[in-house]
Amino acid sequence: MVIYPDERTIEVLKAQSPGHPLLRCQGFIFDVDGVLCRGEDPIPRAPEAIERLRRGGKKVIFISNNSTKSREDYIAKFERLGIPVVADDLVLSTYATAQYVAKERPGARVYMVGAPGLRQELALAGLSLVEDPFQAEYVVVGSPFDGTGRIREDNAHRITGALRALYHAGAKFVATNPDRIFPAKDGVIPGTGAVIGALSYMLDREPDAVIGKPSEHIVRIALSRLGLAPEECAIVGDMDTDMLAGKRMGMTTVFVRSGAMTEEKLRSLGIEPDFAFDSVIEMLKAEGG
Amino acid sequence: MVIYPDERTIEVLKAQSPGHPLLRCQGFIFDVDGVLCRGEDPIPRAPEAIERLRRGGKKVIFISNNSTKSREDYIAKFERLGIPVVADDLVLSTYATAQYVAKERPGARVYMVGAPGLRQELALAGLSLVEDPFQAEYVVVGSPFDGTGRIREDNAHRITGALRALYHAGAKFVATNPDRIFPAKDGVIPGTGAVIGALSYMLDREPDAVIGKPSEHIVRIALSRLGLAPEECAIVGDMDTDMLAGKRMGMTTVFVRSGAMTEEKLRSLGIEPDFAFDSVIEMLKAEGG
Repeated sequence: MVIYPDERTIEVLKAQSPGHPLLRCQGFIFDVDGVLCRGEDPIPRAPEAIERLRRGGKKVIFISNNSTKSREDYIAKFERLGIPVVADDLVLSTYATAQYVAKERPGARVYMVGAPGLRQELALAGLSLVEDPFQAEYVVVGSPFDGTGRIREDNAHRITGALRALYHAGAKFVATNPDRIFPAKDGVIPGTGAVIGALSYMLDREPDAVIGKPSEHIVRIALSRLGLAPEECAIVGDMDTDMLAGKRMGMTTVFVRSGAMTEEKLRSLGIEPDFAFDSVIEMLKAEGG
Repeated sequence: MVIYPDERTIEVLKAQSPGHPLLRCQGFIFDVDGVLCRGEDPIPRAPEAIERLRRGGKKVIFISNNSTKSREDYIAKFERLGIPVVADDLVLSTYATAQYVAKERPGARVYMVGAPGLRQELALAGLSLVEDPFQAEYVVVGSPFDGTGRIREDNAHRITGALRALYHAGAKFVATNPDRIFPAKDGVIPGTGAVIGALSYMLDREPDAVIGKPSEHIVRIALSRLGLAPEECAIVGDMDTDMLAGKRMGMTTVFVRSGAMTEEKLRSLGIEPDFAFDSVIEMLKAEGG
């Protein structure tokens, strides 16, 4: 196996494809699941790819629609994957949602549906978590399901609480992400979409904002963290939502085939990424590697 | 207070309004909540109205979208209200749904979301209740919320179970009723609509059948129980859904003002009932009563 120092990789790309748009990208926004790992298993050589980009002077940030984990949870996950990160490298939908609400109304009173990771990020953003729905200015919904698909015990009353905050107290309705279902060991499990669907049906009302991909909100927060313009950055993901979010923002889009969606499926949805690779290491690899 | 024997009432109606369509009605389908009672409190003189209709030779049946109670539960409720009934007088959405599925596929394997009353009716209809979603031919959903708006402990895994039965096992999707929210002491609580909304959003799929009002299914079952044609019957209710179900079937529609919806609201929805009265006793009452 040949080692590709970053200068070499970049030289090879330049020679093979002069004006290669990936060379112009100063920042890379990586989706996590299906791109860097599958669950707890790393995608081969993904840590190496991240390290080489960083050594080549590229800025790297990680985004995820995960609505149940905090950045603290993800720092531990990345450590297990062998990718060193600090909290500022991570833009999860929990964190991004907290930032979105805190920017719109600092210190707002929030009634939440979801997991401890979401609660942690809302509190860290200086928001005031309320248990009385009638006091809420915002309803923030993430997934209330645990890893087996059960509604968490501490969330059994929260669909009703959210309904009351929206119906009686006129709260704003913000969802961490629009994901509908996820594969799991024993079959699919519901995502945050289950709660969006329940509340939307009951109230005949869409959320005021959905923060995760394919919405632009989470990408805007990642870009502002990078301090770069969309056209200076690439988004690297395994799903239609990653590509859509990137295209909406005018970023370079890079599809990897290491995740849940086939390239065929992606293209059948009418989405043409700027680049497609088998995995993130392939993105940096010249012929013969 | 004047007592109105049925013969007298009918004579008065005839004199006041020759050809009065209510006189022609041989059967009366009564909604329960808002018409005969409000929660556990009877609407004044409702038991008397029912008794007089029966004595006058009219057939009477009771329908309700309630998705958590069995007919056994309702016999006890009617006893407390002072209206004598047997199981055959009651067409609840739990019972009607069980009948609908059992007619479509006798003995079908059903995965249910909902309360013990629904389970009881499904079992009484000879359906086979399964706990493994992958074995299900039908998913039947009622409300999984208790009276305080908490998801029942024994339903914490059932949204996921229903999702899996629909997604993996290709089960048919039947809902007891489409109700969205109900008023309760501490604020609104979700109806079966919360589950319909959650599953529909996740699967981008509507239910194959919704049995309760304003659907015709529950009314058809009530009519077949009465053994009468729709044009021989009136539906008496306090909601738009009662009037819509009646109009769709070609029945006489009677709105009562004793329930949750004002007549103004009803008419603002573009629904014109054939008759409107303050309460069921007024329906039988001549001037001067």
